[in-house]
Amino acid sequence: MARQLTGPCQLTRRTLRLMITLYHHPFSRAAGVVWALEEVGQPYELKFIDIMKGAHKAPEFLQLNPMGKLPALTDGDAVITEGAAINVYLADRYALGKLAPAVDDPRRGTYLRWSFFAPSVIEPGSIARAQKWTSAEPGRLGDYDAMITAISGAVAKGPFLLGEMSRWPT
Amino acid sequence: MARQLTGPCQLTRRTLRLMITLYHHPFSRAAGVVWALEEVGQPYELKFIDIMKGAHKAPEFLQLNPMGKLPALTDGDAVITEGAAINVYLADRYALGKLAPAVDDPRRGTYLRWSFFAPSVIEPGSIARAQKWTSAEPGRLGDYDAMITAISGAVAKGPFLLGEMSRWPT
Repeated sequence: MARQLTGPCQLTRRTLRLMITLYHHPFSRAAGVVWALEEVGQPYELKFIDIMKGAHKAPEFLQLNPMGKLPALTDGDAVITEGAAINVYLADRYALGKLAPAVDDPRRGTYLRWSFFAPSVIEPGSIARAQKWTSAEPGRLGDYDAMITAISGAVAKGPFLLGEMSRWPT
Repeated sequence: MARQLTGPCQLTRRTLRLMITLYHHPFSRAAGVVWALEEVGQPYELKFIDIMKGAHKAPEFLQLNPMGKLPALTDGDAVITEGAAINVYLADRYALGKLAPAVDDPRRGTYLRWSFFAPSVIEPGSIARAQKWTSAEPGRLGDYDAMITAISGAVAKGPFLLGEMSRWPT
Protein backbone atom coordinates (compact mmCIF):
# COMPACT_ATOMS: atom_id res chain seq x y z
CA MET A 1 0.00 0.00 0.00
CA ALA A 2 2.69 2.47 1.00
CA ARG A 3 4.67 1.74 -2.14
CA GLN A 4 1.68 2.33 -4.39
CA LEU A 5 0.68 5.59 -2.75
CA THR A 6 4.12 7.10 -2.54
CA GLY A 7 4.77 6.31 -6.20
CA PRO A 8 3.45 9.59 -7.59
CA CYS A 9 5.23 11.55 -4.89
CA GLN A 10 8.59 10.12 -5.91
CA LEU A 11 7.80 11.03 -9.49
CA THR A 12 6.79 14.52 -8.44
CA ARG A 13 10.00 14.98 -6.53
CA ARG A 14 11.99 14.36 -9.68
CA THR A 15 9.93 16.31 -12.19
CA LEU A 16 8.39 19.23 -10.28
CA ARG A 17 11.29 20.29 -8.08
CA LEU A 18 10.95 23.87 -6.84
CA MET A 19 7.44 24.17 -8.22
CA ILE A 20 6.08 25.10 -4.78
CA THR A 21 5.84 28.77 -3.84
CA LEU A 22 4.43 30.03 -0.56
CA TYR A 23 3.26 33.63 -0.43
CA HIS A 24 4.39 34.52 3.02
CA HIS A 25 4.59 37.03 5.81
CA PRO A 26 5.69 35.93 9.28
CA PHE A 27 2.80 37.82 10.96
CA SER A 28 0.14 35.82 9.14
CA ARG A 29 -1.35 32.33 8.96
CA ALA A 30 1.41 31.55 6.42
CA ALA A 31 3.72 30.87 9.37
CA GLY A 32 1.98 27.54 9.99
CA VAL A 33 2.46 26.52 6.38
CA VAL A 34 6.24 27.01 6.59
CA TRP A 35 6.16 24.43 9.38
CA ALA A 36 4.18 22.02 7.22
CA LEU A 37 6.54 22.53 4.28
CA GLU A 38 9.53 21.75 6.47
CA GLU A 39 7.82 18.61 7.78
CA VAL A 40 6.98 17.23 4.33
CA GLY A 41 10.51 17.99 3.16
CA GLN A 42 9.62 19.30 -0.29
CA PRO A 43 11.73 22.07 -1.80
CA TYR A 44 9.88 25.37 -1.92
CA GLU A 45 10.42 29.09 -2.25
CA LEU A 46 9.00 31.86 -0.10
CA LYS A 47 7.61 34.96 -1.73
CA PHE A 48 7.44 37.81 0.75
CA ILE A 49 4.16 39.72 0.70
CA ASP A 50 4.51 42.91 2.68
CA ILE A 51 1.15 43.03 4.46
CA MET A 52 2.32 46.04 6.44
CA LYS A 53 2.36 47.94 3.13
CA GLY A 54 -0.87 46.38 1.89
CA ALA A 55 0.73 44.08 -0.70
CA HIS A 56 -1.93 41.44 0.06
CA LYS A 57 -4.55 43.82 -1.37
CA ALA A 58 -2.59 44.53 -4.57
CA PRO A 59 -4.17 43.35 -7.86
CA GLU A 60 -1.46 40.79 -8.60
CA PHE A 61 -2.01 39.06 -5.27
CA LEU A 62 -5.79 39.31 -5.45
CA GLN A 63 -5.60 37.27 -8.64
CA LEU A 64 -4.25 34.42 -6.55
CA ASN A 65 -6.51 34.97 -3.55
CA PRO A 66 -9.45 37.37 -3.97
CA MET A 67 -9.80 37.33 -0.17
CA GLY A 68 -6.61 39.39 0.00
CA LYS A 69 -5.27 37.16 2.75
CA LEU A 70 -2.24 35.01 3.40
CA PRO A 71 -1.33 32.25 2.98
CA ALA A 72 -1.55 31.31 -0.66
CA LEU A 73 0.51 28.53 -2.15
CA THR A 74 1.12 27.56 -5.74
CA ASP A 75 2.22 24.08 -6.78
CA GLY A 76 2.73 24.11 -10.51
CA ASP A 77 -0.44 25.60 -11.96
CA ALA A 78 -2.52 24.89 -8.83
CA VAL A 79 -3.39 27.77 -6.49
CA ILE A 80 -4.34 26.82 -2.95
CA THR A 81 -5.54 29.14 -0.20
CA GLU A 82 -6.76 28.60 3.38
CA GLY A 83 -3.95 27.51 5.68
CA ALA A 84 -5.59 24.26 6.76
CA ALA A 85 -6.40 23.30 3.17
CA ILE A 86 -2.79 23.91 2.16
CA ASN A 87 -1.47 21.78 5.01
CA VAL A 88 -3.86 18.90 4.29
CA TYR A 89 -2.91 19.17 0.61
CA LEU A 90 0.83 19.03 1.34
CA ALA A 91 0.54 16.12 3.75
CA ASP A 92 -1.71 14.10 1.43
CA ARG A 93 0.36 14.72 -1.65
CA TYR A 94 3.88 14.57 -0.27
CA ALA A 95 3.70 12.66 3.03
CA LEU A 96 0.72 10.32 2.80
CA GLY A 97 1.02 7.61 5.43
CA LYS A 98 3.57 9.71 7.32
CA LEU A 99 2.14 13.16 8.19
CA ALA A 100 -1.37 12.26 7.02
CA PRO A 101 -3.01 8.89 7.68
CA ALA A 102 -3.48 6.93 4.46
CA VAL A 103 -6.97 7.04 2.96
CA ASP A 104 -7.77 3.55 4.32
CA ASP A 105 -6.23 4.20 7.76
CA PRO A 106 -8.86 4.09 10.55
CA ARG A 107 -7.38 7.33 11.91
CA ARG A 108 -8.14 9.20 8.69
CA GLY A 109 -11.53 10.42 9.95
CA THR A 110 -10.12 11.71 13.22
CA TYR A 111 -7.37 13.47 11.29
CA LEU A 112 -9.85 15.25 9.03
CA ARG A 113 -12.21 16.01 11.93
CA TRP A 114 -9.65 18.11 13.75
CA SER A 115 -8.11 19.51 10.58
CA PHE A 116 -11.48 21.12 9.86
CA PHE A 117 -12.24 21.89 13.50
CA ALA A 118 -9.32 24.31 13.78
CA PRO A 119 -10.27 26.80 11.04
CA SER A 120 -14.06 26.38 11.15
CA VAL A 121 -14.71 26.14 14.91
CA ILE A 122 -11.67 27.28 16.92
CA GLU A 123 -10.74 30.28 14.76
CA PRO A 124 -14.16 31.91 14.28
CA GLY A 125 -15.18 30.97 17.83
CA SER A 126 -12.07 32.61 19.25
CA ILE A 127 -12.50 35.71 17.10
CA ALA A 128 -16.14 36.05 18.17
CA ARG A 129 -15.10 35.68 21.81
CA ALA A 130 -12.32 38.25 21.48
CA GLN A 131 -14.68 40.70 19.78
CA LYS A 132 -17.32 40.08 22.46
CA TRP A 133 -19.82 39.15 19.75
CA THR A 134 -22.88 37.57 21.29
CA SER A 135 -26.06 36.34 19.74
CA ALA A 136 -29.50 35.11 20.66
CA GLU A 137 -28.57 32.08 18.54
CA PRO A 138 -25.13 31.13 19.87
CA GLY A 139 -25.55 27.57 18.60
CA ARG A 140 -24.94 28.54 15.00
CA LEU A 141 -21.27 29.39 15.44
CA GLY A 142 -20.77 26.80 18.17
CA ASP A 143 -20.53 27.44 21.88
CA TYR A 144 -17.06 28.63 22.99
CA ASP A 145 -16.95 26.58 26.19
CA ALA A 146 -18.08 23.47 24.31
CA MET A 147 -15.25 24.08 21.85
CA ILE A 148 -12.69 24.17 24.66
CA THR A 149 -14.21 21.01 26.15
CA ALA A 150 -14.10 19.26 22.78
CA ILE A 151 -10.48 20.00 21.99
CA SER A 152 -9.36 19.44 25.60
CA GLY A 153 -10.94 15.99 25.60
CA ALA A 154 -9.33 15.12 22.28
CA VAL A 155 -5.79 16.07 23.29
CA ALA A 156 -6.12 14.48 26.75
CA LYS A 157 -6.05 10.97 25.31
CA GLY A 158 -2.46 10.77 24.14
CA PRO A 159 0.65 12.67 23.22
CA PHE A 160 -0.93 13.58 19.88
CA LEU A 161 -4.48 13.86 18.54
CA LEU A 162 -3.88 10.62 16.65
CA GLY A 163 -2.11 8.82 19.49
CA GLU A 164 1.53 7.82 19.34
CA MET A 165 2.71 9.06 15.96
CA SER A 166 6.07 7.35 16.21
CA ARG A 167 4.28 4.04 15.69
CA TRP A 168 3.03 5.03 12.27
CA PRO A 169 3.97 2.67 9.49
CA THR A 170 6.42 4.13 6.99
CA MET B 1 -3.29 4.30 -10.45
CA ALA B 2 -7.05 4.06 -10.15
CA ARG B 3 -6.84 0.33 -9.53
CA GLN B 4 -4.30 0.75 -6.74
CA LEU B 5 -6.23 3.46 -4.95
CA THR B 6 -9.64 1.82 -5.15
CA GLY B 7 -8.22 -1.46 -3.84
CA PRO B 8 -8.81 -0.75 -0.15
CA CYS B 9 -12.27 0.66 -0.87
CA GLN B 10 -13.34 -2.59 -2.52
CA LEU B 11 -12.08 -4.45 0.50
CA THR B 12 -13.91 -2.08 2.80
CA ARG B 13 -17.13 -2.60 0.90
CA ARG B 14 -16.95 -6.31 1.60
CA THR B 15 -15.84 -6.26 5.21
CA LEU B 16 -17.38 -3.13 6.74
CA ARG B 17 -20.85 -3.16 5.21
CA LEU B 18 -23.37 -1.16 7.23
CA MET B 19 -20.66 0.13 9.51
CA ILE B 20 -21.57 3.75 8.68
CA THR B 21 -24.05 5.59 10.91
CA LEU B 22 -25.03 9.21 10.40
CA TYR B 23 -26.54 11.03 13.37
CA HIS B 24 -29.10 13.08 11.61
CA HIS B 25 -31.83 15.68 11.73
CA PRO B 26 -33.14 17.22 8.52
CA PHE B 27 -32.95 20.76 9.94
CA SER B 28 -29.20 20.56 10.51
CA ARG B 29 -25.91 20.41 8.61
CA ALA B 30 -26.41 16.63 8.54
CA ALA B 31 -28.63 17.14 5.48
CA GLY B 32 -25.57 17.77 3.32
CA VAL B 33 -23.96 14.55 4.52
CA VAL B 34 -26.95 12.48 3.39
CA TRP B 35 -26.27 13.86 -0.09
CA ALA B 36 -22.61 12.86 0.13
CA LEU B 37 -23.52 9.38 1.37
CA GLU B 38 -25.87 8.88 -1.56
CA GLU B 39 -23.19 10.05 -4.00
CA VAL B 40 -20.51 7.69 -2.69
CA GLY B 41 -23.00 4.82 -2.72
CA GLN B 42 -21.98 3.22 0.56
CA PRO B 43 -24.65 1.55 2.70
CA TYR B 44 -25.39 3.53 5.84
CA GLU B 45 -27.98 3.97 8.53
CA LEU B 46 -29.50 7.19 9.82
CA LYS B 47 -29.92 7.71 13.54
CA PHE B 48 -32.48 10.40 14.22
CA ILE B 49 -31.38 12.96 16.81
CA ASP B 50 -34.35 15.06 17.87
CA ILE B 51 -32.72 18.47 18.13
CA MET B 52 -36.15 20.01 18.77
CA LYS B 53 -36.18 18.10 22.06
CA GLY B 54 -32.51 18.79 22.80
CA ALA B 55 -31.26 15.27 22.06
CA HIS B 56 -28.03 16.77 20.65
CA LYS B 57 -27.20 18.02 24.15
CA ALA B 58 -27.85 14.66 25.85
CA PRO B 59 -24.84 12.93 27.46
CA GLU B 60 -24.85 9.97 25.03
CA PHE B 61 -24.58 12.29 22.04
CA LEU B 62 -22.04 14.61 23.71
CA GLN B 63 -19.76 11.58 24.00
CA LEU B 64 -19.65 11.49 20.21
CA ASN B 65 -19.50 15.24 19.70
CA PRO B 66 -18.83 17.44 22.73
CA MET B 67 -19.94 20.42 20.62
CA GLY B 68 -23.49 19.12 20.88
CA LYS B 69 -24.00 19.65 17.16
CA LEU B 70 -24.98 17.65 14.14
CA PRO B 71 -23.73 16.01 12.02
CA ALA B 72 -21.68 13.25 13.56
CA LEU B 73 -20.81 10.11 11.65
CA THR B 74 -19.34 6.84 12.83
CA ASP B 75 -17.53 4.44 10.50
CA GLY B 76 -16.57 1.40 12.51
CA ASP B 77 -14.79 2.74 15.57
CA ALA B 78 -14.04 6.14 14.00
CA VAL B 79 -16.08 9.17 15.04
CA ILE B 80 -16.09 12.09 12.62
CA THR B 81 -17.71 15.48 13.14
CA GLU B 82 -17.83 18.71 11.10
CA GLY B 83 -19.91 18.33 7.96
CA ALA B 84 -17.13 19.27 5.55
CA ALA B 85 -14.66 16.91 7.24
CA ILE B 86 -17.17 14.06 6.95
CA ASN B 87 -17.77 14.73 3.27
CA VAL B 88 -14.06 14.91 2.45
CA TYR B 89 -13.57 11.70 4.45
CA LEU B 90 -16.32 9.86 2.59
CA ALA B 91 -15.15 11.01 -0.83
CA ASP B 92 -11.50 10.17 -0.15
CA ARG B 93 -12.22 6.79 1.34
CA TYR B 94 -15.05 5.55 -0.83
CA ALA B 95 -14.92 7.56 -4.07
CA LEU B 96 -11.30 8.60 -4.57
CA GLY B 97 -10.75 9.60 -8.19
CA LYS B 98 -14.51 9.95 -8.66
CA LEU B 99 -15.99 12.43 -6.17
CA ALA B 100 -12.59 13.53 -4.86
CA PRO B 101 -9.58 14.12 -7.11
CA ALA B 102 -6.86 11.55 -6.50
CA VAL B 103 -3.99 12.66 -4.29
CA ASP B 104 -1.73 13.20 -7.33
CA ASP B 105 -4.44 14.92 -9.42
CA PRO B 106 -3.55 18.58 -10.17
CA ARG B 107 -7.12 19.52 -9.14
CA ARG B 108 -6.60 18.17 -5.63
CA GLY B 109 -5.48 21.55 -4.25
CA THR B 110 -8.43 23.41 -5.73
CA TYR B 111 -10.75 20.75 -4.31
CA LEU B 112 -9.34 21.14 -0.81
CA ARG B 113 -9.22 24.93 -1.09
CA TRP B 114 -12.98 25.23 -1.55
CA SER B 115 -13.77 22.33 0.78
CA PHE B 116 -12.20 24.37 3.57
CA PHE B 117 -13.46 27.70 2.29
CA ALA B 118 -17.10 26.73 2.84
CA PRO B 119 -17.03 26.02 6.59
CA SER B 120 -14.19 28.36 7.59
CA VAL B 121 -14.94 31.43 5.46
CA ILE B 122 -18.47 31.32 4.02
CA GLU B 123 -20.22 29.97 7.13
CA PRO B 124 -18.72 32.21 9.83
CA GLY B 125 -18.70 35.18 7.44
CA SER B 126 -22.39 34.72 6.70
CA ILE B 127 -23.27 34.27 10.36
CA ALA B 128 -21.36 37.42 11.30
CA ARG B 129 -23.16 39.32 8.54
CA ALA B 130 -26.59 38.03 9.61
CA GLN B 131 -25.85 38.94 13.23
CA LYS B 132 -24.61 42.39 12.18
CA TRP B 133 -21.33 41.71 13.95
CA THR B 134 -18.76 44.32 13.02
CA SER B 135 -15.24 44.85 14.16
CA ALA B 136 -12.42 47.35 14.00
CA GLU B 137 -10.40 44.40 12.67
CA PRO B 138 -12.61 42.95 9.96
CA GLY B 139 -9.65 41.31 8.29
CA ARG B 140 -9.40 38.56 10.85
CA LEU B 141 -12.62 36.82 9.88
CA GLY B 142 -12.34 37.81 6.22
CA ASP B 143 -14.24 40.52 4.43
CA TYR B 144 -17.78 39.49 3.42
CA ASP B 145 -17.71 41.19 0.01
CA ALA B 146 -14.31 39.68 -0.76
CA MET B 147 -15.76 36.27 0.10
CA ILE B 148 -18.60 36.75 -2.39
CA THR B 149 -16.09 37.93 -5.02
CA ALA B 150 -13.85 34.93 -4.36
CA ILE B 151 -16.54 32.28 -4.68
CA SER B 152 -18.25 34.05 -7.59
CA GLY B 153 -15.00 34.11 -9.52
CA ALA B 154 -14.38 30.44 -8.81
CA VAL B 155 -17.78 29.20 -10.00
CA ALA B 156 -17.78 31.52 -13.05
CA LYS B 157 -15.11 29.45 -14.79
CA GLY B 158 -17.07 26.30 -15.53
CA PRO B 159 -20.08 24.20 -14.73
CA PHE B 160 -18.36 22.99 -11.55
CA LEU B 161 -15.60 24.32 -9.30
CA LEU B 162 -13.30 21.68 -10.77
CA GLY B 163 -14.42 22.14 -14.36
CA GLU B 164 -16.24 19.47 -16.31
CA MET B 165 -16.61 16.62 -13.85
CA SER B 166 -17.97 14.22 -16.43
CA ARG B 167 -14.48 14.03 -17.93
CA TRP B 168 -13.00 12.57 -14.76
CA PRO B 169 -11.18 9.30 -15.20
CA THR B 170 -12.92 6.36 -13.58
